[in-house]
Amino acid sequence: MTSPETFNGWLGHDSKSVQGNLRWESFAPKPFAETDVDIKISHCGICGSDLHTLRSGWGPTHYPICVGHEIVGHVVRVGNVASSRLQIGDRVGVGAQAFSCQKEDCDECSSGLQQYCKGFVGTYNGKYEDSGYWSMGGYADHARVPAAFAVKIPKTLKSEDAAPMMCGGITVYAPLKNNGAGPGKRVGIVGLGGLGHFGVLFAKALGCEQVVAISRGRNKEKDARAMGATEYIATAEDENWDKKHAKSLDLIVSTVSSPDLPLAEYLSLLRTNGQFIQVGAPEDKLPAFAAFALIGQGCKLGGSLIGSPKEIEDMLAFAAEKGIKPWVQTQPMEEANKGVVEMDKGSARYRIVLVNEEEAKARGL
Amino acid sequence: MTSPETFNGWLGHDSKSVQGNLRWESFAPKPFAETDVDIKISHCGICGSDLHTLRSGWGPTHYPICVGHEIVGHVVRVGNVASSRLQIGDRVGVGAQAFSCQKEDCDECSSGLQQYCKGFVGTYNGKYEDSGYWSMGGYADHARVPAAFAVKIPKTLKSEDAAPMMCGGITVYAPLKNNGAGPGKRVGIVGLGGLGHFGVLFAKALGCEQVVAISRGRNKEKDARAMGATEYIATAEDENWDKKHAKSLDLIVSTVSSPDLPLAEYLSLLRTNGQFIQVGAPEDKLPAFAAFALIGQGCKLGGSLIGSPKEIEDMLAFAAEKGIKPWVQTQPMEEANKGVVEMDKGSARYRIVLVNEEEAKARGL
Repeated sequence: MTSPETFNGWLGHDSKSVQGNLRWESFAPKPFAETDVDIKISHCGICGSDLHTLRSGWGPTHYPICVGHEIVGHVVRVGNVASSRLQIGDRVGVGAQAFSCQKEDCDECSSGLQQYCKGFVGTYNGKYEDSGYWSMGGYADHARVPAAFAVKIPKTLKSEDAAPMMCGGITVYAPLKNNGAGPGKRVGIVGLGGLGHFGVLFAKALGCEQVVAISRGRNKEKDARAMGATEYIATAEDENWDKKHAKSLDLIVSTVSSPDLPLAEYLSLLRTNGQFIQVGAPEDKLPAFAAFALIGQGCKLGGSLIGSPKEIEDMLAFAAEKGIKPWVQTQPMEEANKGVVEMDKGSARYRIVLVNEEEAKARGL
Repeated sequence: MTSPETFNGWLGHDSKSVQGNLRWESFAPKPFAETDVDIKISHCGICGSDLHTLRSGWGPTHYPICVGHEIVGHVVRVGNVASSRLQIGDRVGVGAQAFSCQKEDCDECSSGLQQYCKGFVGTYNGKYEDSGYWSMGGYADHARVPAAFAVKIPKTLKSEDAAPMMCGGITVYAPLKNNGAGPGKRVGIVGLGGLGHFGVLFAKALGCEQVVAISRGRNKEKDARAMGATEYIATAEDENWDKKHAKSLDLIVSTVSSPDLPLAEYLSLLRTNGQFIQVGAPEDKLPAFAAFALIGQGCKLGGSLIGSPKEIEDMLAFAAEKGIKPWVQTQPMEEANKGVVEMDKGSARYRIVLVNEEEAKARGL
């Protein structure tokens, strides 16, 4: 196996590219470093972040850009340093982070919290300080990334299932795991999109006593219950839902990224000492609320950002062990524009995964 | 020892009473229950809550009211049920809570979190459901409270020192203790009033690696360092204080109750996975901030409400063991109005404690 000198991918050239105007073009990958691997991409999930970035929603995007950070593929080139971790032919996944400083005196890197390192470089739209290169993502035939952020995938996990776990999955798995989701705990998941559906699946698999799906309408109730939800709240339809379910949950993970979420009402669902973890990142501020909403229940409002390579490894092992089966819709990589438009409309059920069909077929994936 | 049928105290009759218009009058205590004790009050601290309540700042107050919930005194009457816990002559303290449901099926009462019980009755301005009586506090000669909320005070603690710990002390001790303040941890205390000064004293005594006092001006720096602060930030005077101290603290306890606190800047002081616990309760909403302030650092914004009787007991034992010496100014109970006005002006250094001098002298306190 070899890797080409130029890669090909779906490039966005401006903020309108989110409307389905990506163009399949070649681009130069980052200069190869001995810590890098090249990956021949078989699968890439479509994440909400891709859309925020294509439309410059989180700040100005560096165009042209190739988005996609739920990458699965096979290693086709390995740097000398990287070879201690990975070998040619390994099936790996890459999530939203491609680089951290990895210095010994970095608080975050030295304690397994690489996703919070100041030197964070995203898998796309991130700048490598050494080369000045802007990172390019996975709606493409190849990706070049530091090997430290390519995680081996357990054999029993299908590539199309592992791909959306790399960002959507880990973003909810980490806060569930780090905040005690498990037997005896009552957990709520706000928003039933790509992330939220993983939230329900993982909370159930972690053995939570109750898994409450919280969405605006009732239209996703059947799906949510099929995923493992034991209860369903439709905030736009159930009268007095906040009072009815007051003080009922130990932990809520909120995946919505709309800034007008009814935060005070959500907080009122927490039991004493409960925690509300926001993982969806609205482009605007959160609504203001009274401090007493926290003080009166001794509760906490937190945030959580994706997960470290080690956490991703743990999640993949857990998913393999529990046989977790995400709800994905595969589409040919050729139809990336269609996928982006569908994702933007919110019609994905629940994650769209682009497949480089030739590569997938060649490997029987 | 006996207890009288009517008690005497400083009563506020309307919201203007906070300006120093309390009147020394007699009032009827709650009907005596076999779970109650009567306390002859020797000391009562003046707490910020007293002022909020006198002015109806947290909602309408039930007038006439006798405030004060940092009570120390001696038990002079014990109910039959209460006698298993306390005896006549015991020196006890009473904090901000006088009653919780204590039912076996109460999540909070059954897990030592009585301060979050739905049946919470404050030491003043709270209504006992059984008798319909509105509770009366400690700017008085006597108090009648359920024995479950009267905590014995270790012999080596002076009454004037123990009194302000009953609310001001426990309000900061509990979140410090519950969120890991101790060796190796860097802790910030926002606001250097009664609560904040306890924050610095306790954080130091808990062995924190750094104790950073955060105030608006620099005028309290000398005091803060004398209390044990290792660093001082004056937010109104130090340029770029937030950037200079970015990501430096594991835990911040915020004691301020002004709603215009620079919350986003405070959050930026937290290290990855750090926690900011608000204990001061502003009368208005907290300022809005971007979710990314939490997500980007994996940090949490929480609230904490006073402490349970068990936590108060632990704090008093810890204070006795470590020889913690709060900075208090004693004034005769006769001068309650003067004390309230001084407290409202913010001139207390750092807690004013009213003393029933006759009682204190009689006992050599």
